[in-house]
Amino acid sequence: MIVVMQRGASEREIEIVVAALRQRNLTPHLSAGVERTVIGVLGPVGPTGVAGALGGITPEVGEALAGMEGVEQVLEVSKPYKLASRDFHPEPTVIRVESPAGEVLIGGREVVMMAGPCTVESEEQLLEAARAARSGGAKVLRGGAYKPSTSPYGFRGLGVAGLELLTQARTETGLAVVTEVMTPAEVELVASHADILQVGARNMQNYYLLDEVGRSHKPVMLKRGLSATIEEWLLAAEYILSQGNPNVMLCERGIRTFERMTRNTVDINAVPLVKQLSHLPVIVDPSQGTGKRSLVASVTLAAVAAGADGLLVEIHPHPDAALKDGAQSLHLGQYAELMPGVRAVAQAIGRV
Amino acid sequence: MIVVMQRGASEREIEIVVAALRQRNLTPHLSAGVERTVIGVLGPVGPTGVAGALGGITPEVGEALAGMEGVEQVLEVSKPYKLASRDFHPEPTVIRVESPAGEVLIGGREVVMMAGPCTVESEEQLLEAARAARSGGAKVLRGGAYKPSTSPYGFRGLGVAGLELLTQARTETGLAVVTEVMTPAEVELVASHADILQVGARNMQNYYLLDEVGRSHKPVMLKRGLSATIEEWLLAAEYILSQGNPNVMLCERGIRTFERMTRNTVDINAVPLVKQLSHLPVIVDPSQGTGKRSLVASVTLAAVAAGADGLLVEIHPHPDAALKDGAQSLHLGQYAELMPGVRAVAQAIGRV
Amino acid sequence: MIVVMQRGASEREIEIVVAALRQRNLTPHLSAGVERTVIGVLGPVGPTGVAGALGGITPEVGEALAGMEGVEQVLEVSKPYKLASRDFHPEPTVIRVESPAGEVLIGGREVVMMAGPCTVESEEQLLEAARAARSGGAKVLRGGAYKPSTSPYGFRGLGVAGLELLTQARTETGLAVVTEVMTPAEVELVASHADILQVGARNMQNYYLLDEVGRSHKPVMLKRGLSATIEEWLLAAEYILSQGNPNVMLCERGIRTFERMTRNTVDINAVPLVKQLSHLPVIVDPSQGTGKRSLVASVTLAAVAAGADGLLVEIHPHPDAALKDGAQSLHLGQYAELMPGVRAVAQAIGRV
Amino acid sequence: MIVVMQRGASEREIEIVVAALRQRNLTPHLSAGVERTVIGVLGPVGPTGVAGALGGITPEVGEALAGMEGVEQVLEVSKPYKLASRDFHPEPTVIRVESPAGEVLIGGREVVMMAGPCTVESEEQLLEAARAARSGGAKVLRGGAYKPSTSPYGFRGLGVAGLELLTQARTETGLAVVTEVMTPAEVELVASHADILQVGARNMQNYYLLDEVGRSHKPVMLKRGLSATIEEWLLAAEYILSQGNPNVMLCERGIRTFERMTRNTVDINAVPLVKQLSHLPVIVDPSQGTGKRSLVASVTLAAVAAGADGLLVEIHPHPDAALKDGAQSLHLGQYAELMPGVRAVAQAIGRV
Repeated sequence: MIVVMQRGASEREIEIVVAALRQRNLTPHLSAGVERTVIGVLGPVGPTGVAGALGGITPEVGEALAGMEGVEQVLEVSKPYKLASRDFHPEPTVIRVESPAGEVLIGGREVVMMAGPCTVESEEQLLEAARAARSGGAKVLRGGAYKPSTSPYGFRGLGVAGLELLTQARTETGLAVVTEVMTPAEVELVASHADILQVGARNMQNYYLLDEVGRSHKPVMLKRGLSATIEEWLLAAEYILSQGNPNVMLCERGIRTFERMTRNTVDINAVPLVKQLSHLPVIVDPSQGTGKRSLVASVTLAAVAAGADGLLVEIHPHPDAALKDGAQSLHLGQYAELMPGVRAVAQAIGRV
Repeated sequence: MIVVMQRGASEREIEIVVAALRQRNLTPHLSAGVERTVIGVLGPVGPTGVAGALGGITPEVGEALAGMEGVEQVLEVSKPYKLASRDFHPEPTVIRVESPAGEVLIGGREVVMMAGPCTVESEEQLLEAARAARSGGAKVLRGGAYKPSTSPYGFRGLGVAGLELLTQARTETGLAVVTEVMTPAEVELVASHADILQVGARNMQNYYLLDEVGRSHKPVMLKRGLSATIEEWLLAAEYILSQGNPNVMLCERGIRTFERMTRNTVDINAVPLVKQLSHLPVIVDPSQGTGKRSLVASVTLAAVAAGADGLLVEIHPHPDAALKDGAQSLHLGQYAELMPGVRAVAQAIGRV
Repeated sequence: MIVVMQRGASEREIEIVVAALRQRNLTPHLSAGVERTVIGVLGPVGPTGVAGALGGITPEVGEALAGMEGVEQVLEVSKPYKLASRDFHPEPTVIRVESPAGEVLIGGREVVMMAGPCTVESEEQLLEAARAARSGGAKVLRGGAYKPSTSPYGFRGLGVAGLELLTQARTETGLAVVTEVMTPAEVELVASHADILQVGARNMQNYYLLDEVGRSHKPVMLKRGLSATIEEWLLAAEYILSQGNPNVMLCERGIRTFERMTRNTVDINAVPLVKQLSHLPVIVDPSQGTGKRSLVASVTLAAVAAGADGLLVEIHPHPDAALKDGAQSLHLGQYAELMPGVRAVAQAIGRV
Repeated sequence: MIVVMQRGASEREIEIVVAALRQRNLTPHLSAGVERTVIGVLGPVGPTGVAGALGGITPEVGEALAGMEGVEQVLEVSKPYKLASRDFHPEPTVIRVESPAGEVLIGGREVVMMAGPCTVESEEQLLEAARAARSGGAKVLRGGAYKPSTSPYGFRGLGVAGLELLTQARTETGLAVVTEVMTPAEVELVASHADILQVGARNMQNYYLLDEVGRSHKPVMLKRGLSATIEEWLLAAEYILSQGNPNVMLCERGIRTFERMTRNTVDINAVPLVKQLSHLPVIVDPSQGTGKRSLVASVTLAAVAAGADGLLVEIHPHPDAALKDGAQSLHLGQYAELMPGVRAVAQAIGRV
């Protein structure tokens, strides 16, 4: 941590900052430049809370210092996450997901396709989509039983009945299942039907939920929040990892920007960047990420080329009649046509 | 709802859209212009879900139509919220909040000051802040017992002990208490100590939590999400209202933009706009909204001038030693100095 | 254009809107729904200005109506650009760029590589980069002689001397040259040295400059503004096209978002979307788009997979000593390593 | 400047960074922490360009270092602007603007009202608006003769005829005139009619134009770019100041965010923040900043309360017939009603 004093900060102000650091058992190193004094802070990154206030560089120390008289800014040097970081875990994490057809490896050489309807609507709809997903080479079936709806009057999913349909489709097709869990109290229930627990974008900073999926033994797909920075996203992963669950995959699903023609803006830069910062696998969701069916194929291919470890794609037997997100779901035929391209691009960059 | 067909959409494509509307018991009105056909849709705004798919304009119908062949865009004409809207409730809502010193009215002529520390840290800290808050004219004490922390290693609040300190401060000072509740399972507990339940920005779309505070009898302060549009914010309020709790106040606490010098950007436009769209009271939080102590006073006065019904301000006896958000907390003396200005501006616009 | 009246708008208010439309020779079509009246407006898209105020749907009519009493919103149905639109020009535009080594086709089957230093610094630097660019398969040499600098104390380019070095490199290597022009008065000068005139992101709405390059006979590369919507970008292209220059290529170079770890966010969705909306070729600049050398290769491949017609990549013999943008420039060796991947991905999607 | 090395950066990488600094005549100070090495850089902030590359901390040095092997990030400690900074010019700048009725002081105790139509349309329209502006207490008349139009088919202003009407209105009413200049070649012409030269938001980084108004003797109103950071805005002011023109006022006119219900988002935080960082006066434009007439009054009052030195408000005798921006222009009566509130709020904060 580096504390940059204002030009013309007084000796007294500098002394008070130094004292505040010492009080927290941190060691200040002063550099008095021509224009201003800069104070480097060395010391362990310590525990936090009431105890932490007295020792170590905690997330709160910088905040407190930034508000002190004569301080211009406080610059953080260390990354605030550890378990999620490549620095502490140089090898890429490969997550083993169970499925009736055997283990699916996420984060390895294969680009894993996950496909299915946005929302589980009926046995017929789900099974038709699941069979098409498998035929196209998907290893994981997606489908929502609990759905976040912006409006209280919108469809919120079939709930338990939806979970049971997912289990039925899983058995029939051999696909692993990824489905969303929205509240801590339902983690156990959802985990009893899902192979991967999805934490949705709106819940990326629902810390009780992160804690709870962190205590689960199931792999977790953590979607990036609509306006979450990459650092916040990795800190959310850190919540899960720090509870003992090492199997977290990060899903880029588009961020909110000023652009209005697409529902979200896929942050393609985030794919290689997160893979450099972290050892965790990165998935891309081009359906949510664009909101437009006509863009899904191109952005899927782009995600593969950028290095994504997996894709999460919405497909539907009858998108025009879909209960949710019809506009961004591929027809089953479009999905089937897209798959060879996915494999061709994967091979072009040395993957499968 | 208006369906705009593409230039050169075929007769067949238009027919399919019309059929899809009729299937949902909606009445299409075609206008064939020189360049393109536009289909106006009249019909009741109906229930949703599996049943809803067959009748009425639900939030999902537009999505499904937007993806159909030949459709360029679907324009929503009606507001998606009702109970939160001025159209359905022209009179402003005045919320009655209990306090030991009597009822506090929020949304009336008085601009209500709510002040206190970001986080409850100790009896001494809280009581000193609470007394200062009251002396400055605050009617409500703020203070967090459960705190969202971006990092799992950050301070997450004193929990129940914090709630008890709030109750103690409430009794001693006569102030009403507003404090955050973060998960459905804790609503009842927090409500037993709080006069106003705060739903934080990160939880604005935590729908289980919205449902649960909607079933509570306590007034709710709903903070705007970091990247929530005004429409999404009002829809979140609609969740609470539709569960039977009419006492929702909306708190603008800054949105996330590209600007990096301030923690957030207070959307001052939102204050008059939300008051035009909705009957619910609007509060502004200039502490979170700026993240910088030196900006809090000016933005507080701006919020009053813009028409805010209340203010939520962080104050701390020793901000430099605060466990959280020290950089944006006013010293007690700064708060005391600010209050006469608040009253002067309130009077300048005909309030108190 | 569709005028949506407020719920409860009075008969008088509706009449005034209708009269305002008729005064502009537009034909209003009223639909009186249960909740509100909607007025569809048919009529030619006419000229603007003082004359235009009296006839046709001009960009200003909607604005004026939107502010009238009783009007809730005005929805635009028609695209505001024509010459740039696929509707009016269904075939993709293929731009023929001259170079000493023959014509370069942009917008055809080949993904055209454009590489070179951010800024022309010296004969040695430029020639070394140009030779490497050509060896890697580039057809176009990029290099700035006039550079926008955020700070007045930053480097603003070598000017004419830089242009002359570009011409020298062009002659020696056979590459076509793309370089930026920053002000109308210099268009002729820059055009005498460049094969493609670049309009930079900061100048995307410099309308005098757009007019002037529109009167030039050289192809134009129009970079997207930092916060320009796709519609605004296409309207900027429309400026150039409407002056008679049909050879406009659009360059996505990253937009400004809240994310701070990358200089910009490449809007990968924009690549297929713009190609659907417009017939103009789309180029991607992964150097500006990421601001980080370590991300350039992955994002380059992603751009190819997404359907870009060309790439604009910064390379430098000694990035660490670069006068500008060193952090995002590839070493010549990195560029050479990247090229086979570019071709492999291009072939995977059926291009070369 | 502080160079933060990666965890595990090699000795060799550190040496290369140190050598690169020494080569630029900068003095590196190494701090080897437990986790990583940090290199503080002291030295003069020097000239730039080819010469500058060899000495001093220029804007480009950090960029080059940031891309070197083993470097994690480069943190800038010093502000990149000087002449615009409070550090170098502690006293607030008060700009003296000429008008037939005497000097108008901007940046002093008075909150200066500037009002008028968005665009000069006719003698009658302009004079009617100008008289109303003056009656309401405005000291400056605004009105565009050259107008930026997003569409090439939009109205681009009356040009010279508009300037002449402004001069006529100036003579008749005694008001000073502020009007936009869009290209370097027209600065002299516009300056011969205007008392304040306005640089529009789209031109905030049109450096040739900044240079040229910097060489003019007329005060300049520099609007903030749609997505310009505060630092970039101050650097744009620095361009003008560094050419010798000390009379720059900064106009906050709303920034572009994700919110779609308002045209822009007024960054109210920027008002006190810029006044702390800089000595230059700050103006707020609530018309452009909101895009909605119904919000202008509240945001005007908020801007005064936040500490703005002036206001730029669009008024029109017949907004419904305005050629431009009708939806955000106040009726003359609304403006007259607003003025007493402006004065009341100004007095409430100790201004006039």
